[in-house]
Amino acid sequence: MNNTFNVPRGTSDILPDAVPLWEALEFLARKICKSYGYREIRTPVYEDVNLFKRSLGATTDVVNKQLLELASAKEDEGYALRPEGTASVMRSYIENSFDKKERLSKFFYIGPMFRGERPQKGRLRQFHQIGVEAISVDEASPFLDAETIALAMHLLREFGVKDPQLKINSLGSKEDKARISDWLRGEFAKHKDKLCVDCRERFERNVFRVLDCKNESCRKVVASVVKDLPLSVPSQEYFSKVQAALTSIKIPFEVSPHLVRGLDYYTHTVFEITAAGRLGSQDAVGAGGRYSTLAFELGGAENIRGIGFALGIERILLALGEAPIELARVDVFIMAMKEEYQPLIFLVLQLLRKAGISADMGFVCGSMKSQMGRADKAGARFALIVGEDEVKNNSIAVKDMQNSTQETVALADIVEHLGKVLSS
Amino acid sequence: MNNTFNVPRGTSDILPDAVPLWEALEFLARKICKSYGYREIRTPVYEDVNLFKRSLGATTDVVNKQLLELASAKEDEGYALRPEGTASVMRSYIENSFDKKERLSKFFYIGPMFRGERPQKGRLRQFHQIGVEAISVDEASPFLDAETIALAMHLLREFGVKDPQLKINSLGSKEDKARISDWLRGEFAKHKDKLCVDCRERFERNVFRVLDCKNESCRKVVASVVKDLPLSVPSQEYFSKVQAALTSIKIPFEVSPHLVRGLDYYTHTVFEITAAGRLGSQDAVGAGGRYSTLAFELGGAENIRGIGFALGIERILLALGEAPIELARVDVFIMAMKEEYQPLIFLVLQLLRKAGISADMGFVCGSMKSQMGRADKAGARFALIVGEDEVKNNSIAVKDMQNSTQETVALADIVEHLGKVLSS
Repeated sequence: MNNTFNVPRGTSDILPDAVPLWEALEFLARKICKSYGYREIRTPVYEDVNLFKRSLGATTDVVNKQLLELASAKEDEGYALRPEGTASVMRSYIENSFDKKERLSKFFYIGPMFRGERPQKGRLRQFHQIGVEAISVDEASPFLDAETIALAMHLLREFGVKDPQLKINSLGSKEDKARISDWLRGEFAKHKDKLCVDCRERFERNVFRVLDCKNESCRKVVASVVKDLPLSVPSQEYFSKVQAALTSIKIPFEVSPHLVRGLDYYTHTVFEITAAGRLGSQDAVGAGGRYSTLAFELGGAENIRGIGFALGIERILLALGEAPIELARVDVFIMAMKEEYQPLIFLVLQLLRKAGISADMGFVCGSMKSQMGRADKAGARFALIVGEDEVKNNSIAVKDMQNSTQETVALADIVEHLGKVLSS
Repeated sequence: MNNTFNVPRGTSDILPDAVPLWEALEFLARKICKSYGYREIRTPVYEDVNLFKRSLGATTDVVNKQLLELASAKEDEGYALRPEGTASVMRSYIENSFDKKERLSKFFYIGPMFRGERPQKGRLRQFHQIGVEAISVDEASPFLDAETIALAMHLLREFGVKDPQLKINSLGSKEDKARISDWLRGEFAKHKDKLCVDCRERFERNVFRVLDCKNESCRKVVASVVKDLPLSVPSQEYFSKVQAALTSIKIPFEVSPHLVRGLDYYTHTVFEITAAGRLGSQDAVGAGGRYSTLAFELGGAENIRGIGFALGIERILLALGEAPIELARVDVFIMAMKEEYQPLIFLVLQLLRKAGISADMGFVCGSMKSQMGRADKAGARFALIVGEDEVKNNSIAVKDMQNSTQETVALADIVEHLGKVLSS
């Protein structure tokens, strides 16, 4: 019997040395999303399983193979860990009648998502996303599409991702999609023997997915058949305005007629951002698109539409390629040379913390050397030492760990003294 | 067929108006925990189900009735959403060999926990905790116990919880616990007919739980039988030192010999903090204790011990009794009086955001009145208006929403101008 436990397959611990990087990304994400008028929403990590089936499309890979469901005693009460954020945000939008309160609601979220995939580099079972959804009962605005894309690019640049590459495409309106599906099926039918097994299946249930198949034979067929998606004139005009808006704010992009996304609900603008780095084939750091029928499919009003994206935090960290950093834990480490002085240093410790100074103490009253080792490990700038002389004189020895100088400070002055030297 | 979806039973959305309060608590928690030398750790939301069975005790309510398990195709691969944080942190501590790297490791965590309880006020299926674990291979230090309790009280006070009440107790060492169990069983056997059904069952599997039964008849029996827990002399001395340390830093407490906690792994110091407020009978806002056998039970070294606590964020918010607050979303709202001016305001919008000024625009080019309504709803301090005159003169009208004054600013100066007035 294996007596120990491991972190579940496809998940990972974010250990203390790695957390500061996550915190920095989250801080920037909150600041920048807010500066675009987005507000944070936090939905539960699990939802009614049918929410995902209905929103993502019952035949998508995510729903068919990758939902992590909760065990349930009751047949009719099925829950699944959320595989993405859009369905949950839209569920909350409808449930809380945001469409009755305001014409345009802008949400962002930061949190874990879950897919029961075979784990590999850049694909985890519990992974984390920063995402936004701009949901409205207004007419769609091409400037909102451009703003959303600009926000994704702004975030990635602030995070330090080098040279993110933006691809955009338009799938057209719902009517366009239906018409284009028929056309694609007609065209691909002529080359069906050259398509891979997956694509022959996709052919029936979502022929758009053939467009982004990675199989080389499929790519050749796609390249020969699809130069442009035959959009209706209004859809084409809308897409042109999105491109003009992006150009006006100097965001470079490539129009890729073969770009589709794995989720059924997208219409009109879709986009994907890739980054070079240690990602290998999983080089997408973010993606998103517009959706116009999602709300209605989830029981909301027909005029609710939205656009959003999600960035993968683990993917971004891989692209950044930064190693965890060990930060100083506290500014001050206080130690007693005898156990009987511990009550005194404990008092000083709490006074320091109440004054907002980060501090720790040697809970084990070991040798000077071992306690200095702990002070060093904690990254303390000052080690405070209380020995026989200090107790006799109501003072504390203050050792500067950077230049190894030492001075004696009166006990009554210690908080003020450290406050001063630490802030200078 | 009900076409819409609701948030899962016993969970809730944290909507944008409520998030700022959560953010404020989390910010304070991170700052204060760090000032005590604790570092954040983030473990996955689910773990091997046996981790919880082995750590919490297979016969506890949490494990018997409240684990939310993931559906699994394989019998041997069971996972459950974490019902608390200690088991996960200890699993990670052992798996990552922290005991080989440092003598004392101090972790804190903030995140969702899950219990399949019947939902009621203050009891949710997805709830959120701020917790800490100080895990060490040193001898236990009573100052570490006192520090942990002080940290919990410090956090609650900084959060604004009025008059938190601290109760502490000692369950003694593992040997003490076994001896006291026998003694309690002997005493309670004499009054078995007066104990409730639950307690007659607890009597066998964990007699300590009889001590904190809420049933009135049980309370009478407990009050008559247990004045003090008969601790061994070393355990009593250790507990006295914890109390002396708390007294020295002026933290008031009540020793409650009937205080036990619902989890099997506690030994020595346990504590609970309650707060008056809108909590009703669920008035505990936090609790914790020392554990000395948990690591060994999870396959770690026998000399690994720890102490920790968890505070319930929803409970704290109930105690604070604060209503969600609607904050300003952006500082600046820019609107075009004609659709043909939208490309211009979109450009200005992005310039403002790049300069760190939070801003939004009217994506729908409605009437002045409707766009002013949106600016107002966004809480903007300044509304920028671009109409025919402004375009002709390369300027923007800047309306101060507080005092309704208006001025005209040259287009080229607008970012600098707003940067100045907003920072003043």
